[in-house]
Amino acid sequence: MSSKVKIGIVGAAGWVGIELIKILLNHPNASIKVITSRDLYGKTLSGVFANFNTQAAQKILFTKPNTKELLTCDLVFFATPHGVAMNMAGELLKGGVRIIDLGADFRIKDSVLWQKYYNMEHTKPQLLTQAVYGLTEHNRQTIKSANLIANPGCYPTVVSLALKPLLNANYINKQTIIADCKSGVSGAGRGANLATSFCEVNETTKAYGVSGHRHLPEITQTLSDIADDDVKIVFIPHLIPMARGMLATIYVDLIADKNIADIRKLFINCYQNEPFVQVLADGQIPETRFVKYSNNCQIGIQLLDNKKLLILATIDNLVKGASGQAVQNMNIMFDLPETQGLADIGVIP
Amino acid sequence: MSSKVKIGIVGAAGWVGIELIKILLNHPNASIKVITSRDLYGKTLSGVFANFNTQAAQKILFTKPNTKELLTCDLVFFATPHGVAMNMAGELLKGGVRIIDLGADFRIKDSVLWQKYYNMEHTKPQLLTQAVYGLTEHNRQTIKSANLIANPGCYPTVVSLALKPLLNANYINKQTIIADCKSGVSGAGRGANLATSFCEVNETTKAYGVSGHRHLPEITQTLSDIADDDVKIVFIPHLIPMARGMLATIYVDLIADKNIADIRKLFINCYQNEPFVQVLADGQIPETRFVKYSNNCQIGIQLLDNKKLLILATIDNLVKGASGQAVQNMNIMFDLPETQGLADIGVIP
Amino acid sequence: MSSKVKIGIVGAAGWVGIELIKILLNHPNASIKVITSRDLYGKTLSGVFANFNTQAAQKILFTKPNTKELLTCDLVFFATPHGVAMNMAGELLKGGVRIIDLGADFRIKDSVLWQKYYNMEHTKPQLLTQAVYGLTEHNRQTIKSANLIANPGCYPTVVSLALKPLLNANYINKQTIIADCKSGVSGAGRGANLATSFCEVNETTKAYGVSGHRHLPEITQTLSDIADDDVKIVFIPHLIPMARGMLATIYVDLIADKNIADIRKLFINCYQNEPFVQVLADGQIPETRFVKYSNNCQIGIQLLDNKKLLILATIDNLVKGASGQAVQNMNIMFDLPETQGLADIGVIP
Amino acid sequence: MSSKVKIGIVGAAGWVGIELIKILLNHPNASIKVITSRDLYGKTLSGVFANFNTQAAQKILFTKPNTKELLTCDLVFFATPHGVAMNMAGELLKGGVRIIDLGADFRIKDSVLWQKYYNMEHTKPQLLTQAVYGLTEHNRQTIKSANLIANPGCYPTVVSLALKPLLNANYINKQTIIADCKSGVSGAGRGANLATSFCEVNETTKAYGVSGHRHLPEITQTLSDIADDDVKIVFIPHLIPMARGMLATIYVDLIADKNIADIRKLFINCYQNEPFVQVLADGQIPETRFVKYSNNCQIGIQLLDNKKLLILATIDNLVKGASGQAVQNMNIMFDLPETQGLADIGVIP
Repeated sequence: MSSKVKIGIVGAAGWVGIELIKILLNHPNASIKVITSRDLYGKTLSGVFANFNTQAAQKILFTKPNTKELLTCDLVFFATPHGVAMNMAGELLKGGVRIIDLGADFRIKDSVLWQKYYNMEHTKPQLLTQAVYGLTEHNRQTIKSANLIANPGCYPTVVSLALKPLLNANYINKQTIIADCKSGVSGAGRGANLATSFCEVNETTKAYGVSGHRHLPEITQTLSDIADDDVKIVFIPHLIPMARGMLATIYVDLIADKNIADIRKLFINCYQNEPFVQVLADGQIPETRFVKYSNNCQIGIQLLDNKKLLILATIDNLVKGASGQAVQNMNIMFDLPETQGLADIGVIP
Repeated sequence: MSSKVKIGIVGAAGWVGIELIKILLNHPNASIKVITSRDLYGKTLSGVFANFNTQAAQKILFTKPNTKELLTCDLVFFATPHGVAMNMAGELLKGGVRIIDLGADFRIKDSVLWQKYYNMEHTKPQLLTQAVYGLTEHNRQTIKSANLIANPGCYPTVVSLALKPLLNANYINKQTIIADCKSGVSGAGRGANLATSFCEVNETTKAYGVSGHRHLPEITQTLSDIADDDVKIVFIPHLIPMARGMLATIYVDLIADKNIADIRKLFINCYQNEPFVQVLADGQIPETRFVKYSNNCQIGIQLLDNKKLLILATIDNLVKGASGQAVQNMNIMFDLPETQGLADIGVIP
Repeated sequence: MSSKVKIGIVGAAGWVGIELIKILLNHPNASIKVITSRDLYGKTLSGVFANFNTQAAQKILFTKPNTKELLTCDLVFFATPHGVAMNMAGELLKGGVRIIDLGADFRIKDSVLWQKYYNMEHTKPQLLTQAVYGLTEHNRQTIKSANLIANPGCYPTVVSLALKPLLNANYINKQTIIADCKSGVSGAGRGANLATSFCEVNETTKAYGVSGHRHLPEITQTLSDIADDDVKIVFIPHLIPMARGMLATIYVDLIADKNIADIRKLFINCYQNEPFVQVLADGQIPETRFVKYSNNCQIGIQLLDNKKLLILATIDNLVKGASGQAVQNMNIMFDLPETQGLADIGVIP
Repeated sequence: MSSKVKIGIVGAAGWVGIELIKILLNHPNASIKVITSRDLYGKTLSGVFANFNTQAAQKILFTKPNTKELLTCDLVFFATPHGVAMNMAGELLKGGVRIIDLGADFRIKDSVLWQKYYNMEHTKPQLLTQAVYGLTEHNRQTIKSANLIANPGCYPTVVSLALKPLLNANYINKQTIIADCKSGVSGAGRGANLATSFCEVNETTKAYGVSGHRHLPEITQTLSDIADDDVKIVFIPHLIPMARGMLATIYVDLIADKNIADIRKLFINCYQNEPFVQVLADGQIPETRFVKYSNNCQIGIQLLDNKKLLILATIDNLVKGASGQAVQNMNIMFDLPETQGLADIGVIP
């Protein structure tokens, strides 16, 4: 017991928070101490969500966010809208609590750019340098000792993992990348919202955020950081009538003629020691269902002509795209096996 | 032009209102003059709902509900939550405007009972006697000359049509009826509501309103009126992950041994001249998709043993369960062919 | 009666055939004489599909395909898999029957290319010159007098309509077009097929046909014909968990700097007299639900930077992408108003 | 290693088989030795189902069903259509292999009745006496030493668990039970089947099997065995557009006046030591999503009047309704903790 990481979750009643609870309840080295929700405080977890009907979960109560209580934790996850974590992080960090923010407050290094996209003042720009961007496969070493993790957005995660091998090896034109992305509805969060009501999104599909989605500067920053060079990308997200899952269909221009075997080798070499990134066999097409409920990212590649490469990459937006990657980072921060609590495989149907 | 019925729709931005607009735009004898919405006023119909991109529809603007403007209409439909129509009806009726209320304000004759189920004071009980309950197949004659129609709820419509032949003929025990009903999500209305958000209702099913749904007293009143006797019913509605459609699975006890041919004949005789009620052939099972987008009610019957009869009945909750039946009533009120504007058949897939 | 076009439909039990029946039953100038299905012959239309429960439809029987019977028609639609129409067309044409093939047999002018993509011998290459490609907005004049129409595929229709104004005006680089397309499941046809079973496609999305979809040569041929120049396109289709609807997300490079107002004007000028193509207002994003059940194509455009243009275009794959466009062509061939029988607007939800 | 149960799965490529593989791959005391599929033999598990992309799973190959190979196992699961297990069971049992049949071959004790409902000769009626019906909560003691388990159908499982406390206590009229059941599509199995294709079942609902579903005699037999008396039930299943999940809405007549507290106590007493049956709190309504992917059965009760009780019970049809209960029985047969490998809780969304 004494060795378990004491956990607080702020914003525990959203889809990201619920997924975190689910993962951490099964995590042998974690102990959930605090879950907060302004809407549900005073209620039990299992009373609201009958799936959490285990003995352990029945005792867990939602409370109001309270710094004093959170200071008793070793690690606090923020699964909150942007603007919440930045106002609570300072005091917790001072009190020795480590933080993983699943919101957007610390993802963009340039606070002016952040303010433009999030339409809100950034009240703690001084914390941005200290924040480590939690794309595990890219920043594993710095995550180890970080006290403040900016957990990546779902789109940035899948797009970055799809492009990392090619950018590292300088195989592609860095100015002509197009990422046509498809997301399930849970990516929009949980809440009373006409735009995500069943009758609005069922049996239809559409692009959205076409004039500049909030994840665009994050993607650009991350790809540029990976490439150590300026990267430009066209990024168009789409809403798909499914609860979970994310597919990135990415079109890139190869700089030099490469055959598919070379490129496949590049991907395999890059990811062979990564527990959660799987390069599919030749001809195997990723489907979002195969990573659903898992922390996996699956990648398929296809040469369209001698210059044009198609990369297809899938994640579960709530797991590798949010809570799963956050726990992966937690495992690294607390010297636990990186896959601890994250062994679930994709479940069909 | 002069012969067209001038129409106002209050609450035109909900699913029932949108369905009314769709039907009436195609109706040769109707002319939409006013559509109101507190949320969308000032916007054009086609600007908000791009499907309404016809020349006629492009000119239609949402306005705020305004009695003066509505008084220029021949007929006003209320597609509003309960409590709205009763406060506007009096003045409109005085001004010679006829009214069809698709909400619940005038459905229950007993205002005390209404108040218990709707948890709100009934401000115009004096209008209840004048209101005609708009179950067309039951009240066609009185609808003709009515000025105020209480358009039935979706569940009461399908349950009543399923039982009418049996109650009329006194074939069944009137105290042991069970109606297990299934509805698509649009029945809950359009609006920002956590309970009907995609991720809450997709891939799941549940009963609701088990301690007493608001449609229960309406069903009981209507069945009793049809039977001219006290009828008791167990009514349990369920939410199904589909946008439209309603299925009533009804279990009744036959008073005397009847064979299926007798019962089928009873149903056919009852409905042979009804344009919108279809008794399916022996062995044919109703599916909600076969009535989707149509004003039809389809009924299948099956003898379970020599005493127990199963009745399966389907409607589209937004058409025969709301806007279609309202237009059917309008046609009768204005001496138009009853099927005018309602010729659409079910569409698959 | 004598003025009605006498219609035969071969392959009437698939989704395309069912949609044709639905449209033509409501068409004032058409009379369905023959519907064929090898699986359902001998059964009545309304017995199999209870939605067709009208008086007219109840009398319609599925028969086996039979040339003699089809020769009594003025027009025969083939809603069949490739390989069927080419073997029956010759005799019907000789007998004076006009043909609209909704399958792929006459779409590709180059029979060798056809054989490569369809993996079957083309038995009637001599008919290819006589066949008119039925993209109405492109070939209206030649359709008028055609006896054999190759009705376009769904993807070629939406992609071609989205690009036509730009290709006509020579605004874009014709070698760098990317079309990332999304389709509902009905596009795969009706039949017992594991790949389109509910539990395989629900709650998931994927790309398919990435190594060369059958619609690729048709798209290339059509765009090149429109541009009167060689056009190259990357075309990647995706399967979306919805029954109907198709969205094309198209990325093009502008040759010269253009502002969005110029481009919008170009689209509006191109389509202002087209009854079924709608250019959406600035900022309005197409959603497939807004064209569902209609013959409309809706197009939105967005400038991504001063060189990159995004075009979003939607159709209902079974209507404008198949049966609706076929009836549009029929109307033209038989000197009927082009919109006859096709007035349905998109229906939500 | 030596302590692990060596497992064979016949019919491993259906939904039930896939779910078994998923559970057993995570089971610390099981080792999958053989998985068979006539369609997929020669292929790897992970090659067909990319979700099984773990090191352990990548080595697993589908083989053709082969008794010799299966004889090397300690336990063979049959996840096959009826008629398969009965022809292979004898030889395996003789060879000392224990069997859990998830098909229907050994569920009905009366082979004549079985033949009537399954329309096939029962070739091994002599095995029926030796077969133990694997409703764990009812037959735990006899399961312990059984060599041949007839694993219950999904509907019989949920209906029996919902009624067991009431039948044990003789609280209800045993002749008037009505079970209106709702199932996800995966209950119909995996395969090329028009009736379960996406466009046939999406956005619609229907009753089926109304003239006598195959699970009816199994339900009757099980309830009668639980009650130790003749029980009669009306059982009407419905198909719901969701992949997984099952809800039973059950209407019963109380023999004597009981208050809800008494009845709740009865249920709680019956199930307080059961790890997988959860009686929900007063007012909490079961939803299928709360048991999805878990082996749980959740039960809610509601008094409708002083004589009529409503019981709502949910399971995941593939877990407690099939593979989960099978592993629960395996655990008991092999003296393992009953919950081993079955700790997953329901997952939302």
